[in-house]
Amino acid sequence: MTAITGTDPRTAGPLEPTAQASSTDHVAELAGRAAHDAFALENLGRERRADLLDAMAAAVERRRDDVIEIASRETGFADAKLNGELTRAVFQLRFFAAVLREGSYLEAIIDRAGDTPMGPRPDLRRLLVPIGPVAVFGASNFPFAFSVLGGDTASALAAGCPVILKAHDSHPGTSKLSYDILSEAAEAFGAPSGTLGIVYGLQGGADLVAHSAIRAVGFTGSLNGGQALLDIVNGRDEPIPFYGELSSINPVIVTPAAASERAEQIGRDLVASFTTGAGQLCTKPGVVLVPRSADGDRLVDAATAALTETAPQLLLNERIYSSYTAETAQLRQRCQVATFDAAASAPASGFYVDAALFEVDLAHLDGDLVREIFGPVSVIVRYDAEQVVDQVASALHRLPRSLTATVHHGSTADEDLTGRLTAVVRETAGRILYNGFPTGVAVSWAQNHGGPWPSTNSLHTSVGATAIRRFLRPLTFQNAPESVLPQELRSDFERIPRRIGGVLTLPSADTGTSAPASATR
Amino acid sequence: MTAITGTDPRTAGPLEPTAQASSTDHVAELAGRAAHDAFALENLGRERRADLLDAMAAAVERRRDDVIEIASRETGFADAKLNGELTRAVFQLRFFAAVLREGSYLEAIIDRAGDTPMGPRPDLRRLLVPIGPVAVFGASNFPFAFSVLGGDTASALAAGCPVILKAHDSHPGTSKLSYDILSEAAEAFGAPSGTLGIVYGLQGGADLVAHSAIRAVGFTGSLNGGQALLDIVNGRDEPIPFYGELSSINPVIVTPAAASERAEQIGRDLVASFTTGAGQLCTKPGVVLVPRSADGDRLVDAATAALTETAPQLLLNERIYSSYTAETAQLRQRCQVATFDAAASAPASGFYVDAALFEVDLAHLDGDLVREIFGPVSVIVRYDAEQVVDQVASALHRLPRSLTATVHHGSTADEDLTGRLTAVVRETAGRILYNGFPTGVAVSWAQNHGGPWPSTNSLHTSVGATAIRRFLRPLTFQNAPESVLPQELRSDFERIPRRIGGVLTLPSADTGTSAPASATR
Repeated sequence: MTAITGTDPRTAGPLEPTAQASSTDHVAELAGRAAHDAFALENLGRERRADLLDAMAAAVERRRDDVIEIASRETGFADAKLNGELTRAVFQLRFFAAVLREGSYLEAIIDRAGDTPMGPRPDLRRLLVPIGPVAVFGASNFPFAFSVLGGDTASALAAGCPVILKAHDSHPGTSKLSYDILSEAAEAFGAPSGTLGIVYGLQGGADLVAHSAIRAVGFTGSLNGGQALLDIVNGRDEPIPFYGELSSINPVIVTPAAASERAEQIGRDLVASFTTGAGQLCTKPGVVLVPRSADGDRLVDAATAALTETAPQLLLNERIYSSYTAETAQLRQRCQVATFDAAASAPASGFYVDAALFEVDLAHLDGDLVREIFGPVSVIVRYDAEQVVDQVASALHRLPRSLTATVHHGSTADEDLTGRLTAVVRETAGRILYNGFPTGVAVSWAQNHGGPWPSTNSLHTSVGATAIRRFLRPLTFQNAPESVLPQELRSDFERIPRRIGGVLTLPSADTGTSAPASATR
Repeated sequence: MTAITGTDPRTAGPLEPTAQASSTDHVAELAGRAAHDAFALENLGRERRADLLDAMAAAVERRRDDVIEIASRETGFADAKLNGELTRAVFQLRFFAAVLREGSYLEAIIDRAGDTPMGPRPDLRRLLVPIGPVAVFGASNFPFAFSVLGGDTASALAAGCPVILKAHDSHPGTSKLSYDILSEAAEAFGAPSGTLGIVYGLQGGADLVAHSAIRAVGFTGSLNGGQALLDIVNGRDEPIPFYGELSSINPVIVTPAAASERAEQIGRDLVASFTTGAGQLCTKPGVVLVPRSADGDRLVDAATAALTETAPQLLLNERIYSSYTAETAQLRQRCQVATFDAAASAPASGFYVDAALFEVDLAHLDGDLVREIFGPVSVIVRYDAEQVVDQVASALHRLPRSLTATVHHGSTADEDLTGRLTAVVRETAGRILYNGFPTGVAVSWAQNHGGPWPSTNSLHTSVGATAIRRFLRPLTFQNAPESVLPQELRSDFERIPRRIGGVLTLPSADTGTSAPASATR
C-alpha cells in the first residue's frame, strides 16, 4: 500500500505520512455503508439535519487552531487567509442549516384532485428527496471552503445524502483532521455511521466514482482531472450526475470611461485580485481588456507599479509550480510586454514564484495564449476604444467561457454601453460583476458559482443556497394516504413555503420555523 | 437523398413521402439560425412568450381535424385516443403560458449588499436564463403530447430556448404538419425565424445532437436509442445535458388486503391499463406482484377473463411489432402460465397482435424475464403473502428501476404495511401511486415523469411545470446598475414571487400577473 504524504510548499520537502491509499475493497465497504445508512440520514428530517450541520460547525470552530496549523504546513497559505476561509466554511455549514429550516428547497407542491380540461386529475404531491451517497472531491486551493469542510459536503449533507470524501493529495493531513472532526461530531450527534467516509489516493478516487452505490459526484479541480472522472462516470453501467467546477479565465472588461475615471485604482485592484491566494483561485481575473489609449496606459502603468511592489508568491504544490513556470515562460515569448515582480526574487527552494503581468494586442489573442493558469499571473489585452463592443465580442469569442465576467464602467452616461456589454458577456459566464473583481465568492441565497463549459459542466452552482438542488431528485405521490406522506406534504403541515393548487403559499405566521437568529447561532 | 416515408400500421404498407432526410449542411444551417435568434426569443420576455404559446395552442386547435387525420393514418391509434392526446398537447402549451406568467420558475433571488460574518457582501441578484437551442426527439407512441407538439417543445420554448425537432420516423407526416402549424403561428406572432426548426432521418438527428450550437437534448424513446444519442453527447467537445426518458416497467404491488377486498376490480383495471394505447405507454404496468393465495387467484382469473374479451391490438410500427412478437414468444417459453386474448385472433396483415398476460413465481423472476416490452403484455409475479415486504423488496431488487411504482392497499388497517412498502418502492421510482394504475400522466404543477436509471438519466421531470428547469441555467449579477438588470430583478419590480434577503416574497396583490382565467384562455 502507498502512504499518502503531504508536501511542505515552503521547502518542497515531504511531511509525515497521513494515511494509506485506500484499497478497492475499502472503498466498496465505505460505499456500501453509505448506501445502507442513506435512508436513516434522510429520516433524521430537515430540522434534525439542520441541528447536525450546526453541531458540525461548532465542532470545527472548537478545533480552529488545530486545523489552521496543519493547513498552514500543507498549503503555505498565510494564517489570515486560512482563518478567513475557515470562518467561511463554518458559516457555510450554518447557512445550509438555515436553508433546511426555511424549507423552500424541497419545492413542495400539492395539486389536489379535481377536474381539468383533460378529465379528472388525481391528488398529486411532489417534493425533492435525496439522491443517495455522494462522492466529494475537494480542491487544492481551498483546503477548507472547497474541501472536506466545503460547500459540496455541506450541501450534500443538507440534502440528506451521505458523503464520501476524496482527500486532496495536496493537503491530506488537513483533509483527515477535518474529516475526523466532522465524523466525531456526527457520531456524538447520533447520526448514522454511514453519514461520512473518506478515501485517499488516485485509485481510491477512481474506485469511488465507479462504485454503483455512488449517486452523484461533486468535483472542484482542473479540467484534466475533471475530464478523467467524467470518463469514468460515462463508463458506468448507470450514469450519474457529475458536477465539475473546472476551469475559468474570468475576463475583466474596462470601458474607456472606466479607464478615464479610475485607471490607477483599477490597475492596483487588479494586481491585488490576481495575486490573492497566490493567484490560485478559480475566479482569478486571467484576462483584462483595456483600451489602447492614454487612459489604458495609465491603468497598465499602475498595475505594473503595484506588481513590482509584490513579494514572491508561494504556490501550493509541485504540479502547480511546474505548470506556472512553463506557462509564464511561454507567455513571455509570445507577448509584447511582460512584467514580473521585482520587489524580491523568488527563493530557489520551495514553490515560490514571481507574480507576472503580460500584455498583448487583441490581434494576437487566441485561446492558446490565454487559458487558465493557476498562479499570480494575468494578461492584459489591448482593444480599440472606438469599437469597444465589437472588440470585446471578438475577444470573448476567441476565449473559453468562464465562471464570471466583469465590466468596469464609468460613473455616468455609460449605461447604454454597459447594457450592450452585458448582452455580450452573459453568454460566456454564470456571474456578471460590475466595477469590482471576481475573486471572493459570497455564500448567500443569490450566489452563482457555475457557468458555461469549460467552467462547469452543469446548470447548477456549487456555492450558495441553490447548490443543494444538485443532490435532490423529484418524487411525486399520487393519491397517497396521508400517513405515508413525508410530513412536508401532509395537508395539515404549514411550516414551509409550498405551492398548493398552483399558488405559492407561505408558512402561516404562528407556525413558522425557527427564527433566523437561531438558524445562524 | 433518402425520402422519409411513414407506414400504415393497418396494412404495413408505405404512405406518401413526407420529406427528404436532412443533410448535415441543412442541420448546421438550422442550428446556426437557432443560435442567432436565441437572444431575440429570450428578449420577447415572459409575458410575450406566454402569448406566443397561447397563439400556438389556438393554431393547433384550429387544425385539430387535419392533424388527427394524418396521425390516425400513421399510427393506427383510435380517433378518441388521438383527440384526447391533442387536447392534452393544447392544454400543455397553455399550461406553460400560465407557468411563465406566474414567474416563480425564474427562481429570482435578491441579496442586497450588507455585512456578513465573512465581511461585507456585494449586491447579488440571481435568476434563471435560457440555455440556448434545444434538440427535441419525439416519441413514437405519443404523436402529439410527446412529439413535435409535446412537453419538451412547450417547456423549452417557455424557457426561451429555440427548438429544433427531430421528426419521428414512425409519424413523419404528423410531425411535419405539427411543425408547420407551430412555425406558421410563430411567424404570424412575430417570433424570430430561428424559434423553430425540424430535421428528418437518423443521420439528421445524430448531426443535430453533435452540433456545437445545441445546448441540450430532450428525448423520449427507447433505452438503445437514448444510449446511442448519449454516446454522441459524451463525444462532443462541449458536454451538454441529455434528458432521456428511456425505459420503465412500472411495478404494481397488490397487498393481500387489496386482493381480498378488490381482486376482480384490480384484475379488470389492470388489463384496461396495460392495453391502453395498445400497451405502448412508458407508464404501462409491466409487472404485477400478486399474493400466492385464493384472493390472488381471483385477481388473475378476473384479468384473464378481461383479456379474453380484448380485441387484437394494433402496434405502431414494424420494429415494435417484431420486438413484441419475439419477446412474448420468449415469455411463453419461460413462464408457467400464459394467456392470450381470444376474442378474435390478430389479422395476418398489418401490425396487429394478441394481448397477453403471463404468470411466474417470484423464485423464477429476473431482470431478463421482465423488461420493458412495448405492446399489450404484462407479467404477474406471485409472492408469498406471509412475507410481503421482504418479497416485494426481493422482486424489485431483481428488476430495473422505473418511472412509477404502484401500491394497491386495503381500505383499513393496512397503513403500516403501506408505509413500509412505500419505503421499499421509493428508491425505485419517481412517482408512487396508490390504488390506481400508472397509465395517464396529468399535466400539472406537482407532476413528476422521471425516475432512476434506466427510466431516465436526469434529476428532472419531462411532464409538468418543473420540466422547464431542464432548459435554464442560473445567472447572477453582482453590483449591477438597475438599467442592465432583467426587469424581474429590478428593485421596483413586484409582479412575481422572489426571495429577497432570504425571505420568499409574494407579488403585491395590486400588481399581480394575469388571472388564472386568462392564463388558460
